[in-house]
Amino acid sequence: MQNNAQSSKEMNYSPTFNFPVQIYYEDTDFSGVVYHPNFLKYFERAREHVIGADILASLWDEYGLGFAVYRSDMLCHDGVEFADIIDVRTRFYFESKYRTVWQQEIWRPNAKKPAVTATIEMICMNKKRQLAPMSPALLKHLSQSFPAGLDL
Amino acid sequence: MQNNAQSSKEMNYSPTFNFPVQIYYEDTDFSGVVYHPNFLKYFERAREHVIGADILASLWDEYGLGFAVYRSDMLCHDGVEFADIIDVRTRFYFESKYRTVWQQEIWRPNAKKPAVTATIEMICMNKKRQLAPMSPALLKHLSQSFPAGLDL
Amino acid sequence: MQNNAQSSKEMNYSPTFNFPVQIYYEDTDFSGVVYHPNFLKYFERAREHVIGADILASLWDEYGLGFAVYRSDMLCHDGVEFADIIDVRTRFYFESKYRTVWQQEIWRPNAKKPAVTATIEMICMNKKRQLAPMSPALLKHLSQSFPAGLDL
Amino acid sequence: MQNNAQSSKEMNYSPTFNFPVQIYYEDTDFSGVVYHPNFLKYFERAREHVIGADILASLWDEYGLGFAVYRSDMLCHDGVEFADIIDVRTRFYFESKYRTVWQQEIWRPNAKKPAVTATIEMICMNKKRQLAPMSPALLKHLSQSFPAGLDL
Repeated sequence: MQNNAQSSKEMNYSPTFNFPVQIYYEDTDFSGVVYHPNFLKYFERAREHVIGADILASLWDEYGLGFAVYRSDMLCHDGVEFADIIDVRTRFYFESKYRTVWQQEIWRPNAKKPAVTATIEMICMNKKRQLAPMSPALLKHLSQSFPAGLDL
Repeated sequence: MQNNAQSSKEMNYSPTFNFPVQIYYEDTDFSGVVYHPNFLKYFERAREHVIGADILASLWDEYGLGFAVYRSDMLCHDGVEFADIIDVRTRFYFESKYRTVWQQEIWRPNAKKPAVTATIEMICMNKKRQLAPMSPALLKHLSQSFPAGLDL
Repeated sequence: MQNNAQSSKEMNYSPTFNFPVQIYYEDTDFSGVVYHPNFLKYFERAREHVIGADILASLWDEYGLGFAVYRSDMLCHDGVEFADIIDVRTRFYFESKYRTVWQQEIWRPNAKKPAVTATIEMICMNKKRQLAPMSPALLKHLSQSFPAGLDL
Repeated sequence: MQNNAQSSKEMNYSPTFNFPVQIYYEDTDFSGVVYHPNFLKYFERAREHVIGADILASLWDEYGLGFAVYRSDMLCHDGVEFADIIDVRTRFYFESKYRTVWQQEIWRPNAKKPAVTATIEMICMNKKRQLAPMSPALLKHLSQSFPAGLDL
């Protein structure tokens, strides 16, 4: 399903970023483990740390641009429990000036494999929710994560 | 602590509105009952139904006005469980053109006393988060709940 | 990627169930539309209505069984706004005694295509979070949605 | 309303604990600021850090004990915005072996007064949701915050 051009983009992943999240009462449900939509929250928090919350805030206020999740494909392999401090591992690549693709994982302490894995596609939109190219400033900022530069 | 003027306002309560809320997985935590901040969500949903979500939306879009919670004083007497369909009972009075006070309760099925009770003060604000008087249209709309008219 | 056996299971979908969800303040974020993980909440609420919350509660209390989301693949085509009353459309089929697959969509009022679409796989687990077959009572209950009977 | 015995207990406050919370998309609503029930979440997270999430987990698993919010009285003075890193300030005293009272505040960066203030009463309960005295181990642990010892 993937052509060669896409494969080469996937090879140009950012480094992996690590972000810890502590699991509180609010995160669990009566089955005793984390309520599954909350995993999408942790992934978003981690992406906000990779990009920078201040950058996202000024992108919205100054450029009228924001990111929206277009697709999220998540696999839940294992339950995550109250008081766990999970490691959210994040890397991404540029699909185009409009789209980034994120590979994200949740690891429980001392685990040998991830509890949750996800592929999340983000698109850049203006305040009218129309597709818009990322601003040059944002591209420059994000490209700092890529030693070999962006492949757009 | 209350002077006579306030007491007379309190006597001018709206009728009691009933609003059902079903308790889902998302509402509970691993202790097996509803996570307490969620009660504030149900109270807000009930207030939105009393006022009307369309009215709130147009109030924001056309007048630049919204309600904000200034104070919430909540007492949790009993746990609320998954699959319960609770009855949120709501009545309110006008404290001034800027402020409404809401008495709200959560009743479990067949209960003899409320599981949660709260007094919530709402203030009207503009988009700069400055105190602003409710619009005449909103006052007229809300006054329809008061057979004897508003006492402002 | 799908063999014939799977294709025939997919053809044995339940009817489509409709479930309304009103969008409240709590559902939105500062971008002005619904925060995307909340769509997974609405899908879960709708599944709970298809199965029955009482049935889920007794399944947990009496049989020690519950459903867990194993995979959720969601596409967000359009933003959903405050005060919308969306229609969550749900149908499902049995993949095995352990697994159900759900096709779910979110439709805004008067829309010509869905705002959100998702495929969600649920597995049946015991309280130790081990894969467990659905109870005969649950299978019998769910099979009532299938005029032609279950194909397991 | 407070007798002398209670006043002396209030004077025996713990030191103030500081806990940072970053505000993400998930925390805001379409009015542009934090959705008010979320403040109760931040207060709970801060309490969990004061007590220790591991201690809370073992208290539940080994002693069958947990804390429940009996009362929360919250005042919202100012809106809190996306990308803020707030300082949650927490101190508490023992009302009895069953009850702790928490004074908690939310401070925005560089603020001269708190954005949110709250008084929250927690009671200790067993798994049947009956009032139960805190375990000796928990009392000993919590008393370490009080240089002059507990006054129960």
